[in-house]
Amino acid sequence: MSQGTIYGVGLGPGSQDLMSVRADRLIRQASHIAYFRKKGRTGHARSIVEGMVAPDAVELPMEYPVTTEIPFDDPRYNALLADFYAASVARLTEIIDAGGDVVVLCEGDPFFYGSFMHLYTRLKGRVPVSVVPGITGMSAAWTATGQPVTWGDDIMTVLMGTLPEETLAEHMMKTDALVVMKIGRNLDKVRRALTRAGREKESWLIEYAAMPQERVLPFSEAGDSAPYFSILVIHGNGRRP
Amino acid sequence: MSQGTIYGVGLGPGSQDLMSVRADRLIRQASHIAYFRKKGRTGHARSIVEGMVAPDAVELPMEYPVTTEIPFDDPRYNALLADFYAASVARLTEIIDAGGDVVVLCEGDPFFYGSFMHLYTRLKGRVPVSVVPGITGMSAAWTATGQPVTWGDDIMTVLMGTLPEETLAEHMMKTDALVVMKIGRNLDKVRRALTRAGREKESWLIEYAAMPQERVLPFSEAGDSAPYFSILVIHGNGRRP
Repeated sequence: MSQGTIYGVGLGPGSQDLMSVRADRLIRQASHIAYFRKKGRTGHARSIVEGMVAPDAVELPMEYPVTTEIPFDDPRYNALLADFYAASVARLTEIIDAGGDVVVLCEGDPFFYGSFMHLYTRLKGRVPVSVVPGITGMSAAWTATGQPVTWGDDIMTVLMGTLPEETLAEHMMKTDALVVMKIGRNLDKVRRALTRAGREKESWLIEYAAMPQERVLPFSEAGDSAPYFSILVIHGNGRRP
Repeated sequence: MSQGTIYGVGLGPGSQDLMSVRADRLIRQASHIAYFRKKGRTGHARSIVEGMVAPDAVELPMEYPVTTEIPFDDPRYNALLADFYAASVARLTEIIDAGGDVVVLCEGDPFFYGSFMHLYTRLKGRVPVSVVPGITGMSAAWTATGQPVTWGDDIMTVLMGTLPEETLAEHMMKTDALVVMKIGRNLDKVRRALTRAGREKESWLIEYAAMPQERVLPFSEAGDSAPYFSILVIHGNGRRP
């Protein structure tokens, strides 16, 4: 029997019709669908494809053993996650070796931050893997602001709110266009960094881009915290005729 | 009669099935299709949608009065393009005012570099405009390399090859993941900047990502020039369990 294929499929920012035609087809035809989720939740990736999955498809939820209960830098965090990824890979490989295909649902673009990459590096070379790129959450975010993000030879920088304040401020100062993700609990630190860089007034916060609750506000109007699906955007202002 | 709508539709990197479901639907149903092209050419955007456009759709090619014949910094360049964009906007507005909809084909993502933005800023507030984000060429490029581009809290920087060598080198030095676009004639300058930043050995060149001629090579194997559709990628190497 020949091996099946693992498809790492980018779902895009969260609206079904912003999925690629290839992703749409793979998901509707899938015999096995795998996705990450927090224990006891539906999982955001799974909820995006609601109504698209065939009734007889086998679903393989992969439940994180830990999300924010243990800090990133605690050695137990890495150990728990490494075990979890190894177990997930074993489950998927079993299906592939039996000749089945598995579609792994990936929010946004599979290779741009995100969790699929941790499976991918463990699967690559062992079983056939095919990756379908997706529209990133940041594209949906800048589209929601109604202003182009980069012009001419603007420099664009993408930062994670988890970085140290000084690193954030230094890069905010030296870029034209800016995207900051993973803001949530880091909102205050991101605000301090923007102030140090003198760029708070140019900043926009986009919550739930391309989702029904989408909301765009000047960053100065953000409160003490931001939802998980929040992206900060500063628009570039480059050469234009 | 009510006004029509202008749709700025992201086509994604060039493969029809990497278009979003929304883009696919808008293009197939369009009564009017507009796109930029070089005089005397089919135009890359138009060629991507070959076979999808309705036989009775009205096509509105917008032909650049100049591409690389005059340097960017020549004042005539800006004047010629400003006139061209104004004339294009007049053509589109006429259709919208008569109640028709127009789909404007945009390679990649409409708000991420590219030409649609020059129409958009002139149309916004005058006629209804709706923008559909797309998969960027850079997503297709890093997907083609078969390696995730960003992990954990990697910093990603996007640079244009048109920037001065010193600016390029400075930013190349301070980022984890890197994307360089608009390489073409700037290949030698980009190479010198990479060398100054000590990052040439980590660099990949992706030509025609997601197109039939797709080719991935270590940047060190690039020749003296690169095709227009070339993207340089350095992968990040951040935190991973």
